[in-house]
Amino acid sequence: MLIAFIGLGNMGAPMARNLLAAGHALRVFDVNEAALGAAAEQGAKICTSPKDAVLEAELVITMLPAAAHVRSVYLNADGVLAGIARGVPAVDCSTIDPATVREVAAKAAAQGVRLADAPVSGGTGGAQAGTLTFMVGASAELFAQLQPVLAQMGRNIVHCGDVGTGQIAKICNNMLLGISMIGVSEAMALGAALGIDTGVLAGVINSSTGRCWSSDTCNPWPGIVETAPASRGYTGGFGAELMLKDLGLATEAARQARQPVILGAVAQQLFQAMSLRGEGGKDFSAIVDSYRKPR
Amino acid sequence: MLIAFIGLGNMGAPMARNLLAAGHALRVFDVNEAALGAAAEQGAKICTSPKDAVLEAELVITMLPAAAHVRSVYLNADGVLAGIARGVPAVDCSTIDPATVREVAAKAAAQGVRLADAPVSGGTGGAQAGTLTFMVGASAELFAQLQPVLAQMGRNIVHCGDVGTGQIAKICNNMLLGISMIGVSEAMALGAALGIDTGVLAGVINSSTGRCWSSDTCNPWPGIVETAPASRGYTGGFGAELMLKDLGLATEAARQARQPVILGAVAQQLFQAMSLRGEGGKDFSAIVDSYRKPR
Amino acid sequence: MLIAFIGLGNMGAPMARNLLAAGHALRVFDVNEAALGAAAEQGAKICTSPKDAVLEAELVITMLPAAAHVRSVYLNADGVLAGIARGVPAVDCSTIDPATVREVAAKAAAQGVRLADAPVSGGTGGAQAGTLTFMVGASAELFAQLQPVLAQMGRNIVHCGDVGTGQIAKICNNMLLGISMIGVSEAMALGAALGIDTGVLAGVINSSTGRCWSSDTCNPWPGIVETAPASRGYTGGFGAELMLKDLGLATEAARQARQPVILGAVAQQLFQAMSLRGEGGKDFSAIVDSYRKPR
Amino acid sequence: MLIAFIGLGNMGAPMARNLLAAGHALRVFDVNEAALGAAAEQGAKICTSPKDAVLEAELVITMLPAAAHVRSVYLNADGVLAGIARGVPAVDCSTIDPATVREVAAKAAAQGVRLADAPVSGGTGGAQAGTLTFMVGASAELFAQLQPVLAQMGRNIVHCGDVGTGQIAKICNNMLLGISMIGVSEAMALGAALGIDTGVLAGVINSSTGRCWSSDTCNPWPGIVETAPASRGYTGGFGAELMLKDLGLATEAARQARQPVILGAVAQQLFQAMSLRGEGGKDFSAIVDSYRKPR
Repeated sequence: MLIAFIGLGNMGAPMARNLLAAGHALRVFDVNEAALGAAAEQGAKICTSPKDAVLEAELVITMLPAAAHVRSVYLNADGVLAGIARGVPAVDCSTIDPATVREVAAKAAAQGVRLADAPVSGGTGGAQAGTLTFMVGASAELFAQLQPVLAQMGRNIVHCGDVGTGQIAKICNNMLLGISMIGVSEAMALGAALGIDTGVLAGVINSSTGRCWSSDTCNPWPGIVETAPASRGYTGGFGAELMLKDLGLATEAARQARQPVILGAVAQQLFQAMSLRGEGGKDFSAIVDSYRKPR
Repeated sequence: MLIAFIGLGNMGAPMARNLLAAGHALRVFDVNEAALGAAAEQGAKICTSPKDAVLEAELVITMLPAAAHVRSVYLNADGVLAGIARGVPAVDCSTIDPATVREVAAKAAAQGVRLADAPVSGGTGGAQAGTLTFMVGASAELFAQLQPVLAQMGRNIVHCGDVGTGQIAKICNNMLLGISMIGVSEAMALGAALGIDTGVLAGVINSSTGRCWSSDTCNPWPGIVETAPASRGYTGGFGAELMLKDLGLATEAARQARQPVILGAVAQQLFQAMSLRGEGGKDFSAIVDSYRKPR
Repeated sequence: MLIAFIGLGNMGAPMARNLLAAGHALRVFDVNEAALGAAAEQGAKICTSPKDAVLEAELVITMLPAAAHVRSVYLNADGVLAGIARGVPAVDCSTIDPATVREVAAKAAAQGVRLADAPVSGGTGGAQAGTLTFMVGASAELFAQLQPVLAQMGRNIVHCGDVGTGQIAKICNNMLLGISMIGVSEAMALGAALGIDTGVLAGVINSSTGRCWSSDTCNPWPGIVETAPASRGYTGGFGAELMLKDLGLATEAARQARQPVILGAVAQQLFQAMSLRGEGGKDFSAIVDSYRKPR
Repeated sequence: MLIAFIGLGNMGAPMARNLLAAGHALRVFDVNEAALGAAAEQGAKICTSPKDAVLEAELVITMLPAAAHVRSVYLNADGVLAGIARGVPAVDCSTIDPATVREVAAKAAAQGVRLADAPVSGGTGGAQAGTLTFMVGASAELFAQLQPVLAQMGRNIVHCGDVGTGQIAKICNNMLLGISMIGVSEAMALGAALGIDTGVLAGVINSSTGRCWSSDTCNPWPGIVETAPASRGYTGGFGAELMLKDLGLATEAARQARQPVILGAVAQQLFQAMSLRGEGGKDFSAIVDSYRKPR
């Protein structure tokens, strides 16, 4: 299939490579020359704009850092909607606010283009290994069309409902994740302060009502879960800055929906405080250090 | 074995009955005459005070509502320590603060009596069915002695460390549980407000990084988990008042240990606000109603 | 002076009337026909668009509900910047985010138009009485030019710095106000619950380190300050929805500036929860009801 | 008058000296030998126990660090109540929880002794200068009796109601103070991050609805208020550890009264986090550093 792929960052580049490996032809665009060069070496065709990239494409995939980029890539004079043919499906894999997704999708629909949102989880590791989870917001028909291609970049392709629901699923899950991670951090730090062995405490939690991914898989206390970022200096997981971004999306969406999210808002501020202290580059589980004496 | 059993409330009464059923002889005490009568009908010997109950007992078990009761049952002139023989082990199954446990244990030790703490989870259902979890704080030797008897009242007997660590494990787990439940409530309510199907959202969460007991087993949104209290009008689970009590124990222990617990403290206040609105009698998952329009 | 006045809502209408009373000629625009009619009866000239209104104007004043309106009123094809003459000053009295102010001001500057922001406090009462406070972001020169006209609508004209700083001053003050009001509510409700006379407590606070406008002037407890909204059923003050809007502006500005605001974020969520319960139409001091038994 | 004065710490010692200077005879007790020696040099009579101190005393004054000390000084076998004569009034100036005050007062009343609580504000500076504020919980009659003596140690003697209300007034005021100080810190730090001059911002706040003692008298931003601790390296004011203690009293009293205090609880945890970082020895306004980049 001839695919236009726009956005070759840390996530987009390996996703594009997996599509090339699966046998697709790719027309790519990015503002980063080096990223374009790397893709060209793998066989992709370099394009001069989003509009240029989507010419003759049978499918458009975008993977961008934030809503402003999605807006300009789709809506600018040299953007996707200026060049895409009626009937060609597009899927945006960026993590942005649901309102922007819906607005861009409405403009696409007005010219006969169906847009899906499909934010991912799994990080750069998942992007490289082709094991991402895609949370897809699309009509049933569009989902059926996209599913096989997404499956070449990921393992778990979940249909969440109409366009925008992919983003909703992601930000709701990640807001809960941020809260859980802080909750586990407080529980572990409190237990340690009160004098229980932290390994024993984690064992109790993991077989009881407190069990959660943040405790049994990504426990923030060093030495509890061998494969967790906490056991390797809080490197190589889900960065605190990304968690902060997602919490910002969640509370902003909540504001627009007039929906209170108390712990979600506190979680956002605690990660913001972590970032202010210069710790934003670590795995988000390093939030536990907010609860420990400075070393 | 001749066991002194003190405290025949909603939890203690079925626990005592299970011990009788297992063939033990019981000397029981409670301030509630009706509870004593019921135990007597099942074959227990009614006593006139804790001191009276522990006479000749080979093991002492207490199950009381709060620290003040534990203090008076053990330390009063007619209390456990006034009658218990040197060498006889005692185990307190109440949920109280670790500091009181350690203080009473030290006084017991001073007269040659080893005290363990063994707070439970599993609720009245677990007490009746004999499927409680016991979180036991005791020396290895004392734990080995207590384990077989506790196993006649429960299914999961966990050794957490020295005396006091049973309480620590419980309050740390339950603080995390309170936080998680509010986190799931906020995530579900936000998703609903933004327009995703709540069943789909729960599915995404449960197979992703937000997964936790509060989502996959006790989801607060009605209709998501058939067996959860939310699907039967928030009845019959873990009452909000009990969660509030445990959060109070956690934050007070944190205060004494000079350990910050930010989300834990907010969770406590939110359950307190729920109680103020007259909703404390419901299952704690009804906290989700704080995030929904009044019906 | 010939003034273009755009936005005749609850605040704008009385502000425009005060300018007419001061002898200015007004060209007015609003989307609300009734508001235009009322202004015409007072002697204003009705215009068909912002662009139309600013023709020949020596000064442009806008007073709009939110950033989206400011954006379209200034930037649309029939907007202020499409018609305003080079050198004519403009002042936006709306309360919006500082980033939008700066963006619109930059576009104005590009065509030789100086824009100031001058959000107000004092409510509809202050607008009618001409006693508003204006927090003005402008160059010293522009401030000197605007000051006399603003003084015909207000009593307190404060120069806060360059364009955008008026908004910053307002949202920082109002974020603190929201926090203070909740703080006073908690202190009064706690005192009442513990059994102190609330009048005595307010007296202690007002002569001690807890003193603040939310306690000595707008105390949320009924009967403490006779002139406060709390003493007349929480009507006629600063509406909770407006506080919620300003807290949203504050936390969103904080997010963009990567600045944590923990109590500010919690305050926003508590007012959002108040709004969800259907109480958003009351004075913001009714947040105290979140801390009292439902009546 | 012959006064028994028990507790010669940082606050008690200068209070006792002021009483000696006013011409009273003092019988003093403390566990600290050096403090006793210093008092003796000033003319006080050293006693061997609280019981010993109150012999023949016409008035008893106690000034102790925490509830446990109050309990033992009054209730132990060699305590105040073991020696005090029927009819002799006692006043406890410690800052402790209202429940302990009421319990000790009830025991005193049972033997014909009237106890008042009179916690102070004003710090060691106020104690030395004799300018403390006393918040007094006592019957009208007892207040009238105590007022002249308290006025020899302070300037502002406030009658708050029956015994216990002095503590209530103090912890409610100080909880609000802790919240306000954090609120001002967030507002100032946000303003600075957004680019307004902090002196201008403080000026706006101080003449607007955000005005409060924490902004106009003790502003946490360095250089705003010349006499504030912030302008001298956060030394010499109201220590963060004392604020943390009072917030602990407030939230614990709230827990017992089943009263939610959301911002109060968050404030407590934020000061606890400040203490954990080793900053507890500074003036409490140094909480603002939690909102600034580490220097």
